[in-house]
Amino acid sequence: MERIETEVLFRNPWHTYRRDRVRRKDGSEGFYFYVDHPSSVAVIGAFRDGTVLVQRTFRYLLGEWLPQVVLGHTRPEEDQAEEARRELLEETGFLAGEVLHLGDFTPYSGVSNEVCHVFLARDLEERGARPEVTEEMEVFRLSRGEARAFLHSGPLLDGQSLSAWALYEAWLEGREEAPEGEEGR
Amino acid sequence: MERIETEVLFRNPWHTYRRDRVRRKDGSEGFYFYVDHPSSVAVIGAFRDGTVLVQRTFRYLLGEWLPQVVLGHTRPEEDQAEEARRELLEETGFLAGEVLHLGDFTPYSGVSNEVCHVFLARDLEERGARPEVTEEMEVFRLSRGEARAFLHSGPLLDGQSLSAWALYEAWLEGREEAPEGEEGR
Repeated sequence: MERIETEVLFRNPWHTYRRDRVRRKDGSEGFYFYVDHPSSVAVIGAFRDGTVLVQRTFRYLLGEWLPQVVLGHTRPEEDQAEEARRELLEETGFLAGEVLHLGDFTPYSGVSNEVCHVFLARDLEERGARPEVTEEMEVFRLSRGEARAFLHSGPLLDGQSLSAWALYEAWLEGREEAPEGEEGR
Repeated sequence: MERIETEVLFRNPWHTYRRDRVRRKDGSEGFYFYVDHPSSVAVIGAFRDGTVLVQRTFRYLLGEWLPQVVLGHTRPEEDQAEEARRELLEETGFLAGEVLHLGDFTPYSGVSNEVCHVFLARDLEERGARPEVTEEMEVFRLSRGEARAFLHSGPLLDGQSLSAWALYEAWLEGREEAPEGEEGR
């Protein structure tokens, strides 16, 4: 499928809603409607003792509290590592001495062009929580096993958090396999 | 945050784009823009020998081929298990004798009300692939370890597939812990 032209249908402070006119592989033309929202971050805040920060967030669209990691919207031109640090501080009150990029995933590839950049935040220092007015959340510090179980506690799970956690587990496994791997820092 | 009223801004064959007028917790009013697209399925097709079906799908919005499991849009009033069976057949050519519900996640809870229902499909019988015209994909049958590595092969990963896979791994672990657990069927 190829883009012939793109049209802005709606613009708001958070994203742009677009309609692209496209040419399909079979030569026919069609439309593709989507959310233009290029970037975001997911942050796993981990302490030296192996505990991690997770949260329960009220999601208006689902009408439910969801088990999550720290998630935040960013702009592509921003330094994503800095944005990860800022989001973690705003949502949990912890400032990270170090942030490590674990990889990228697309949360909703059929309807949004967003790419979520996943970071591990370490060397955490408490500075006091500063939740935003529009957000409703509770923050927890759990052992790694408890955090994993928490993210799998339903009935409804949060896909972006499960994806970020999958990248974190893959990173942990890579460290365990490496001979110089030093767990937890 | 509470809904005061909802307005349809755009409707297309795939979803509805809405603006809700809302009242925030602090009493102020605001708008919430989102994709109204209530349901979908993710399907992991698994064989008796432990191999699973995965695919590489071209995603127009990202301009990339992504490593995925079977994903498909559904309507809330449909039988989600039947839709999972149909999507698997359409995308891979395999008919499932049994589908098992593993859980539900929300892929993009800030901008879409979609809930993805995850299914494990077993007792697979080949009936020949029937890919849809608009889809560009390749299907692979891989060992479980290879499939996991495939879903983690970047640069860009697919969040919905990582989430579905996390539910599959949690289900597998539950079976291993159960004394009557019988691996692979």
